[in-house]
Amino acid sequence: MAADAAFSSPPAAITCRAAVAWGPGQPLVMEEVEVAPPGPLEIRVKVVSTSVCRSDVSAWQSKAQPDLFPRIFGHEASGVVEGVGEEVTEFQVGDHVLTVFIGECKSCKHCISGKSNMCQKLGLERKGVMHSDQKTRFSIKGKPVYHYCAVSSFSEYTVVHSGCAVKVGLTVPMDRVCLLSCGVSAGLGAAWNVADVSEGSSVVIFGLGTVGLSVAQAAKLRGASKIIGVDTNPEKQEKGKAFGVTDFINPNELSEPVQQVIKRMTDGGADYSFECVGDTGVVSTALQSCSDGWGVTVTLGVPKAKPEVSAHYAFLLSGRTLKGSLFGGWRPKSDLPSLVDKYADKEIQVDGLVTHDIPFGDINHALELMLENKCLRCVIHMSQ
Amino acid sequence: MAADAAFSSPPAAITCRAAVAWGPGQPLVMEEVEVAPPGPLEIRVKVVSTSVCRSDVSAWQSKAQPDLFPRIFGHEASGVVEGVGEEVTEFQVGDHVLTVFIGECKSCKHCISGKSNMCQKLGLERKGVMHSDQKTRFSIKGKPVYHYCAVSSFSEYTVVHSGCAVKVGLTVPMDRVCLLSCGVSAGLGAAWNVADVSEGSSVVIFGLGTVGLSVAQAAKLRGASKIIGVDTNPEKQEKGKAFGVTDFINPNELSEPVQQVIKRMTDGGADYSFECVGDTGVVSTALQSCSDGWGVTVTLGVPKAKPEVSAHYAFLLSGRTLKGSLFGGWRPKSDLPSLVDKYADKEIQVDGLVTHDIPFGDINHALELMLENKCLRCVIHMSQ
Repeated sequence: MAADAAFSSPPAAITCRAAVAWGPGQPLVMEEVEVAPPGPLEIRVKVVSTSVCRSDVSAWQSKAQPDLFPRIFGHEASGVVEGVGEEVTEFQVGDHVLTVFIGECKSCKHCISGKSNMCQKLGLERKGVMHSDQKTRFSIKGKPVYHYCAVSSFSEYTVVHSGCAVKVGLTVPMDRVCLLSCGVSAGLGAAWNVADVSEGSSVVIFGLGTVGLSVAQAAKLRGASKIIGVDTNPEKQEKGKAFGVTDFINPNELSEPVQQVIKRMTDGGADYSFECVGDTGVVSTALQSCSDGWGVTVTLGVPKAKPEVSAHYAFLLSGRTLKGSLFGGWRPKSDLPSLVDKYADKEIQVDGLVTHDIPFGDINHALELMLENKCLRCVIHMSQ
Repeated sequence: MAADAAFSSPPAAITCRAAVAWGPGQPLVMEEVEVAPPGPLEIRVKVVSTSVCRSDVSAWQSKAQPDLFPRIFGHEASGVVEGVGEEVTEFQVGDHVLTVFIGECKSCKHCISGKSNMCQKLGLERKGVMHSDQKTRFSIKGKPVYHYCAVSSFSEYTVVHSGCAVKVGLTVPMDRVCLLSCGVSAGLGAAWNVADVSEGSSVVIFGLGTVGLSVAQAAKLRGASKIIGVDTNPEKQEKGKAFGVTDFINPNELSEPVQQVIKRMTDGGADYSFECVGDTGVVSTALQSCSDGWGVTVTLGVPKAKPEVSAHYAFLLSGRTLKGSLFGGWRPKSDLPSLVDKYADKEIQVDGLVTHDIPFGDINHALELMLENKCLRCVIHMSQ
């Protein structure tokens, strides 16, 4: 490894360890990869911690893009800036950062609008390359290794666009705050920005994973009076309580459709419902579980199958709203610092969502835990 | 006819002419029907004018409820109160009223909420009877004749719940203001209440019938800068202009999907899109036609086929909102008077939507015109 020489300036290519997927669902292999120097407006980051998100696992398992292997997954991460490319003025070597899977250029129509996080320059990258030049910054023996969401944090070092990183204070624990770079923020934002949950309201959350529990936490902080958690895993009942869930439903234990039970519990339907499972079929159930007249359903999950959301038109005509969001509607650079502050000030819970701390060398164990639904967040410690 | 004796008190059963549907799609037949006296909280109305709405025709054509024939359709109407039932304090004989197909009891959870028009007592009636006792007020030779939406205005006299009528001034032209009791209000409300169209925004409207043109009018009044009308009928181009449509697209004349054309015209997608065709397939097109990040799609149409609305989840996840509304979100009794005032003050156009004035005896001609898409609104004059 040339990592010790990493703080040289101007930055040169370095080699480091990365967990490389050679094919869909194949166990990751620790490889020595070459990491190119950051290009203009890019930074190279020494990853400190990366947590494993459901979408890493879904993309790794997916056979939809076989040409994008070998590939380095991971996007929920914290790290230290190790090198800065030309034109970068925002970051310096040594800065602590969170990586983000959607960036903010602050100059496109969407960024300027102030009401969208769908940056037209640094939006969700799906082709395994960097936004700027459609090339990779990783290689093994000269052959490209593809990126994931233009982050690829399952590597000791990675290159990201400076618009896809957010500076955080030096005292914030890196191995916990990394959760804010995707899942936790997505849940908080869905409740606060997208649904705009109001005090005294009723909320139902389908799926009590990291995202769903973060929705619960956000709803509780807004003063929701009833927060119903729905999950087929009975262990989520206790976990839910810690995040504000007031009532738990296991659909497997019911003899009637879950939406009927919810309607009874909420006198006609919840004010807000959230689909955090990643199952488009659940979107329709969520819509039916909220009240006509004013009910709002937010879909957050990325489905593992059946990409079409469908619902009987009457559920819309009777006054329901169906919305979706990516990253909870947060504009990463504009908004994420305030969430980090809330974490530092203990206004929001993050630590309780970490169920496993795992050394980088055991990263496959983390993927297995996620596949088997035996974890919330596994944090990978790159230095261990 | 006993109509001349109608202003007696207390009211007794009367007989009058009604256009009765004896089976799905069968031409209406002028029959002498008996109209019961209004029950408690009900009023009997001498219908003056009724316009024909698409949903009358769809329900008449539908084979879904064969047991609800013979039936009297019609719901978009104006009239004069001819008799009042017990406990009615709001209306007096001689009052001018609009009938409404969803009522407002002002006492249920939804009415009290102030944010819903889905009255739990007087909501959309689907069983062909009156809300209060699940019986009909019409009969022929003692056998029941079913209602439609608890209004049934294709009759010289009808009985409605007092919560399903709205008082209007004596000087408002009855044969035009009747359009506010459904279609025009639905369009205005979809733009103002449901989408909340903003100044300078871009709007796309699928279907330039009465509802779609009313959306256009409302968008123009809000100061939308681009109002794109989409219709397969080329004659709608000129009509659209009169209601504020700035750009017209005939999908049949395109060699590419309409949403692509709209995205080009709006630099990425419209701010708002409205489905006024009554085709669930168009809802997905409307969703794709609006901008990610903030686009709002409102579905107003009642589909003639395929009741499932479906869309790829990514269109939602990227920040779009899909909403629906019945009667444009207006609370009929609380809000409709203000629309009548706007009409009286010439702030909103209604007259230009009336393409045909038709005597009651020729009502089948109006239904044919609607079936053949050769009209906007046909107003039926009951006294002619």
